[in-house]
Amino acid sequence: MPQIKKLLIANRGEIALRIIRSAREMGIRTVAIYSEADRQALHVQAADEAVCVGPPPSSESYLKADTIIKICKELGVDAIHPGYGFLSENAGFAKKVEAAGLIFVGPSAHAIEVMGSKLAAKAAVSQYDIPLVPGTAHALTDVAEGQRKAQEIGYPVLIKASAGGGGKGMRVVDSPEGFEEGMQRAISEATSAFGDGSVFLEKFITSPRHIEIQVLGDHHGNIVYLFERECSVQRRHQKVVEEAPSAILTPEIRKAMGEAAVAVARACGYYGAGTVEFIVDEQLKFYFLEMNTRLQVEHPVTEMITGIDLVKEQLHIAEGKPLTFSQEELQINGHALELRVYAEDPANNFLPDIGTLQTYKRPQGPGIRVDDGFQQGMQIPIYYDPMIAKLVSWGKDREEARMRMLRAIKEYQITGIATTLPFGRFVLEHEAFISGQFDTKFVERYFTPEALQQEGSAEEEKLAAALAVYLHAQRKSSSPAGSSAATPSSDSKWRRRSKL
Amino acid sequence: MPQIKKLLIANRGEIALRIIRSAREMGIRTVAIYSEADRQALHVQAADEAVCVGPPPSSESYLKADTIIKICKELGVDAIHPGYGFLSENAGFAKKVEAAGLIFVGPSAHAIEVMGSKLAAKAAVSQYDIPLVPGTAHALTDVAEGQRKAQEIGYPVLIKASAGGGGKGMRVVDSPEGFEEGMQRAISEATSAFGDGSVFLEKFITSPRHIEIQVLGDHHGNIVYLFERECSVQRRHQKVVEEAPSAILTPEIRKAMGEAAVAVARACGYYGAGTVEFIVDEQLKFYFLEMNTRLQVEHPVTEMITGIDLVKEQLHIAEGKPLTFSQEELQINGHALELRVYAEDPANNFLPDIGTLQTYKRPQGPGIRVDDGFQQGMQIPIYYDPMIAKLVSWGKDREEARMRMLRAIKEYQITGIATTLPFGRFVLEHEAFISGQFDTKFVERYFTPEALQQEGSAEEEKLAAALAVYLHAQRKSSSPAGSSAATPSSDSKWRRRSKL
Repeated sequence: MPQIKKLLIANRGEIALRIIRSAREMGIRTVAIYSEADRQALHVQAADEAVCVGPPPSSESYLKADTIIKICKELGVDAIHPGYGFLSENAGFAKKVEAAGLIFVGPSAHAIEVMGSKLAAKAAVSQYDIPLVPGTAHALTDVAEGQRKAQEIGYPVLIKASAGGGGKGMRVVDSPEGFEEGMQRAISEATSAFGDGSVFLEKFITSPRHIEIQVLGDHHGNIVYLFERECSVQRRHQKVVEEAPSAILTPEIRKAMGEAAVAVARACGYYGAGTVEFIVDEQLKFYFLEMNTRLQVEHPVTEMITGIDLVKEQLHIAEGKPLTFSQEELQINGHALELRVYAEDPANNFLPDIGTLQTYKRPQGPGIRVDDGFQQGMQIPIYYDPMIAKLVSWGKDREEARMRMLRAIKEYQITGIATTLPFGRFVLEHEAFISGQFDTKFVERYFTPEALQQEGSAEEEKLAAALAVYLHAQRKSSSPAGSSAATPSSDSKWRRRSKL
Repeated sequence: MPQIKKLLIANRGEIALRIIRSAREMGIRTVAIYSEADRQALHVQAADEAVCVGPPPSSESYLKADTIIKICKELGVDAIHPGYGFLSENAGFAKKVEAAGLIFVGPSAHAIEVMGSKLAAKAAVSQYDIPLVPGTAHALTDVAEGQRKAQEIGYPVLIKASAGGGGKGMRVVDSPEGFEEGMQRAISEATSAFGDGSVFLEKFITSPRHIEIQVLGDHHGNIVYLFERECSVQRRHQKVVEEAPSAILTPEIRKAMGEAAVAVARACGYYGAGTVEFIVDEQLKFYFLEMNTRLQVEHPVTEMITGIDLVKEQLHIAEGKPLTFSQEELQINGHALELRVYAEDPANNFLPDIGTLQTYKRPQGPGIRVDDGFQQGMQIPIYYDPMIAKLVSWGKDREEARMRMLRAIKEYQITGIATTLPFGRFVLEHEAFISGQFDTKFVERYFTPEALQQEGSAEEEKLAAALAVYLHAQRKSSSPAGSSAATPSSDSKWRRRSKL
């Protein structure tokens, strides 16, 4: 395959900017696309060229596959990076890109297709020794058969309506005594809700953790794993704080999970960067959940602990180059955390709080990386995901990464909209997070809006700011140097926050 | 020694802010001091408390030792970090601080004193096996004796006036044939310039490199080295681009230099962070130059390749804690570069260009760290060193670090004053730098203001900006989405620069 000289990034925001940075470091020219709502966006400013592809919503712009391919032909682009979301896991788009003689920076359309379907994915990995959550392979209606299967699976078991959804017809049964009643209730609920009383059984994982493995494969059959990312801190099934490595994996389990992930990738002839997601239970048993056939939002934590630039690797692989490192050469260096900073109000049920970034000052200094697509004065558009930034910290150990992240949260100055920064602070200061003993129920178990009140409401912030201005004026008029020196100033947001 | 609870930073600008960050990550409260010229400075905003110590210049504020100690007593401070410059290598201040019952975050006053005097330093290390630049131990006036000594030292030799300075009475002699004439001329010049015709001989190093070793010692006799920093790219004897590791050292020489540096530190009973500077010749022979008994400006490159936060280590050591790692546990991970960004005009003999940072947008993203003390709209005060920022890049190898730095230079947006960013780009793109084959004469040998002209003069920048605004307006009024999509925008500074 040829060297990529010009790359179109079929995405927006922080990930488009992040891809432009790596491409530029490789000497590759970049083309950004943007919707009319993103004219002023940083990714548009950063690219060597930028093209408007239509108005919001995404269906009229970022998802216009044919328009995007046409732009590539007109501008002499030779490769497309889809980022995450949008067209990144669209097998049809991958096919079209390749049919147009362009390089799709991602896996084959086949791999996207297989892993895009839970059923096809499970079938593909079934010939390998990859653990799946134990359960029944077909629907049941007979209670006696259910009891036998439940015994095989091991209690607690989850009874789920075949036609189910939204928790209807779902029952957790802890022991054989409760099985008959549980199954009958599930059948009855399922029948009345869906008109179909058949149910499945699955092992119920009381305290599940979401841990995923980053893999990289090339076109020459080499596949390696770049260790895990712990993504158990979620709100409404969306990851909010991620870390690498996980606080709880042993080297043996890390290796076993890594090898299982490589086997999953091998099962679909994978090349490029991909992520294999697992559920991990209290005994550190792990079960394959699904594979994401793209770069993940949380990929920076893996970059921070391995020193590998995943976007550059994606581009190298797309050029047909073999991986330049073996599994043995990869090692974990330190610890990294990522906090997704959303334009959402954590005190108000995480409702999106769209508006203008009146103040926007990023934290800096040792061990801090901010991936974002905004700057001061910009609007957060209502059409897209309200993520403002990914705040990433690195430390030589987990505690240093945690304290750096807290320092950076304090330093991050955003006004004009509510953000999840105070929520991030809540998580990082929580005993369960500090100890590493938490699961995907962290937020529902521990978080209440009241937990944020010590952070100061918007009104309090305004009052404090006014007071600071007053004190500053006082100091200015009354404090010559030296003698009255010991008058602490108090006009800083950092300082104000640090007192709360 | 007690735990430090409250730290006063007796410094300003980027280093004060950098120290505040590490202290905060350790849960230590911080007190900033500032001169009247620095009221709005970021280090003042960042600290938990801040105290004005007087007007500029520094002699009236940042150097007011007694005022600073008084503030510590009034505010319940228990330790002082002096940063670099100002009071950091002032043995008298270190003594006063300790006499006041405060912790001085640095070495003993004795170590500062010994290493502050070239003569005392050489005497202290003489009993150890530390190579010094070969030369005569006492002044000469006799040509025959000079010839004998020159033969011992080995040609080329440098003949220097004992009373010398400013290059007067200095002669380089390449071979025995030229010695007599050279020495007589040196004596005659020295006599007429200084009234003293005695001279010294020293080995002349044709192509010297400046390479320094970072050391850390605790109060328990443990001293380790954290590898080298290559600081050969200098203009007017001031470092401008630094890197770690050096592009030319072998593991054996690295180890030998590291061990020599530890011996130097041991010679003065060193504790804290210190730097041992060496001259390295073409054959990679190294000679002890001096020891800096403080944190160096360029310490971040060492932090990037070792993962060690040097400021935190300084604070741990000051608390009396033993080092938490051994020499064997330290290793080099990747490569780091630092560019000092000065408010100076490289096209105009590096004259300081003081003014307001009308635009100030830092680069972000993977592998980039910016240590600075300014933000958009701030003035660069005329009273202090005109350094705006230290731009630091990390890569898994030297080439990745170099390309990242170039990407970051392109991304860095500063208007209102001239900076050394274009000069940095010149250095990083120069063949001698890329190959690693350069010495302390890099700038005088290769750099001319004309080399920057491709970067675009201020006038050209303005024209380009005006054109961009025009094009942007055109695009806005004429380009609906989709069909006329392939109209590249061109309103970005990054893009404009990338075309030059």
